[in-house]
Amino acid sequence: MRIDDLDTPAVLVDIDLVKANVGRWQEYCDQHGIANRPHIKTHKLSQLARMQVEAGAVGVTCQKLGEVEAMLDGGIQDILLPYNILGAHKLERLNALRQRGVITVAADSATTIEGLGAAMRDAGNPLPVMVECDTGLHRCGVQTPEEALALAQLIDRLPGLRFAGLMTYPTSLSETPAFFERTRELCAQSGLDVARTTGGGTPVMWRAHEAQGIDEHRVGTYIYNDRMTVRAGVASWDDCALTILATVVSKPTERWCVLDGGSKTFAMDTYGLEGHGYLPAYPEARLTKLSEEHGVLETEGSERAPTIGERVRVIPNHVCVISNLHNQVYIVRGDEVVDVWQVQSRGAVQ
Amino acid sequence: MRIDDLDTPAVLVDIDLVKANVGRWQEYCDQHGIANRPHIKTHKLSQLARMQVEAGAVGVTCQKLGEVEAMLDGGIQDILLPYNILGAHKLERLNALRQRGVITVAADSATTIEGLGAAMRDAGNPLPVMVECDTGLHRCGVQTPEEALALAQLIDRLPGLRFAGLMTYPTSLSETPAFFERTRELCAQSGLDVARTTGGGTPVMWRAHEAQGIDEHRVGTYIYNDRMTVRAGVASWDDCALTILATVVSKPTERWCVLDGGSKTFAMDTYGLEGHGYLPAYPEARLTKLSEEHGVLETEGSERAPTIGERVRVIPNHVCVISNLHNQVYIVRGDEVVDVWQVQSRGAVQ
Repeated sequence: MRIDDLDTPAVLVDIDLVKANVGRWQEYCDQHGIANRPHIKTHKLSQLARMQVEAGAVGVTCQKLGEVEAMLDGGIQDILLPYNILGAHKLERLNALRQRGVITVAADSATTIEGLGAAMRDAGNPLPVMVECDTGLHRCGVQTPEEALALAQLIDRLPGLRFAGLMTYPTSLSETPAFFERTRELCAQSGLDVARTTGGGTPVMWRAHEAQGIDEHRVGTYIYNDRMTVRAGVASWDDCALTILATVVSKPTERWCVLDGGSKTFAMDTYGLEGHGYLPAYPEARLTKLSEEHGVLETEGSERAPTIGERVRVIPNHVCVISNLHNQVYIVRGDEVVDVWQVQSRGAVQ
Repeated sequence: MRIDDLDTPAVLVDIDLVKANVGRWQEYCDQHGIANRPHIKTHKLSQLARMQVEAGAVGVTCQKLGEVEAMLDGGIQDILLPYNILGAHKLERLNALRQRGVITVAADSATTIEGLGAAMRDAGNPLPVMVECDTGLHRCGVQTPEEALALAQLIDRLPGLRFAGLMTYPTSLSETPAFFERTRELCAQSGLDVARTTGGGTPVMWRAHEAQGIDEHRVGTYIYNDRMTVRAGVASWDDCALTILATVVSKPTERWCVLDGGSKTFAMDTYGLEGHGYLPAYPEARLTKLSEEHGVLETEGSERAPTIGERVRVIPNHVCVISNLHNQVYIVRGDEVVDVWQVQSRGAVQ
């Protein structure tokens, strides 16, 4: 089957570009002695997780238990779930999933840690728990090295848990090394070893080696890339492996036309970018207005504009949310469609 | 099962509020002699479509062929698909689906109409085609009554098609009546009858009777309501039938806490609103920052703030995109969960 034979909208994944993106980052990590633990929220595909692990990743990162389940089903063994797991349902699921692979979690409160401790009672196989540290994002994470120490000590005291190190997101070159270093000192004074430190983030990826004392880097978007990674200067348009194929369904005036996808296809995320996607074939066109199933492409002032029935490819603003909107992706090589993969944990909000 | 027994995030639909919303709008339509054709993109559930039809709706509106399929599967017979259907795949599907119910489409170009005409060759059962008119939104639709006439004539000339009237979105009280009236005159002069006119939109819903010459009104959000319909003044918080149940998983400082859902749970749509949802129990809290699986709830300056492990309900900004993010909704009555319904055409982008 060829791309021309697909109905639209359709998500296309250029598998050769994916391999190149995976390889380039792994090479960088190998060169700098950084453990690579890619985040699968970007693709939600165990086929690509296996590609990442086979290239040299130490394991993967998931954000939800539903993603962990999908990755275990797909044969991935070592999973970091840097999320506060709370509540009887999730603790029970976590307990069951631990029989199938090595799962490490993160926590940033005594409440979370005590809940984990009460649920994990097997002292012979303690759950590895990292302490999440806020080094600038102001989302989750303890605010000071002293708080990190207190939680590390609490984890250490609970028989079913094992203190596994420090986690942050994203790595801040100016803040993270000092926060982790100070925490490491405090832990050492208390006889606790910080076995592992993990940071992450795509914009900082090619400078991860400058962050002293961070063993591991987690990055998600790099496998596909998007307008955000191009804007951040860590990728070029030619590195964008995922595109959305759409059809022009309306052209009421010469000033705009309408694509057959809107917020349910391209997502509303802007992150400060103008419009909702970039069309390599029409670089001046602006995908400005999305309703749910329509995308208004403004072409006023552009030299060229597409016609009704024409098919165009769109590079999305934020590729990680695209995988979550679509049920399947088409794996392509050049103009050939070589496979169709179902997105495995789409909608796994729990 | 009770709501307290559910894991989070979970979408809750209060079925009594749904019924009240459906009933109130139907009563208004009946009173004013307006045909009610609700848009199922909001719920994507044939159970609710049937409730709407049983209450008195003349049929439903869908935006994608995948939604049409789901509604036909659910026993809905009369469907308006106000979308330009282009390309061999979709024309073939449309042809097949027409054997199962009455499907009307809309078109705004000769290209679309000629494609429909070439695919629909059964002059004994012509496809009803409405002409989409742009009466202010500047999305799809012909720009002038003269263009509308030309397309109506083209539809009329093609043996497999039947000119079925005029369609716009949204109804503009100032622009739509004049546009439709002038088109009706032009059509009459050419011997063409405008059998039906259809407008739509939630903000204008309770003033639909002021728009002269529009037979039918399409409205989607009214069945659930959300922050947008409350802001528009067409519903109150007490009319919001869909809420998202979430858990506070982190509270790094007294200034903010973090919910276990982000853009993949609450959606990024803002439509000019501050933040990404409203918490009835914490009306001063601001759900300001969404990453994919985290929602930062700012509580600085609030009198009260939730604690870690606490479960809160969130009214989303735009409820129609919530149905598309989640695989199922929990049907509730008071604190009881009375059913679980799978969202039937989630991700039906084609």
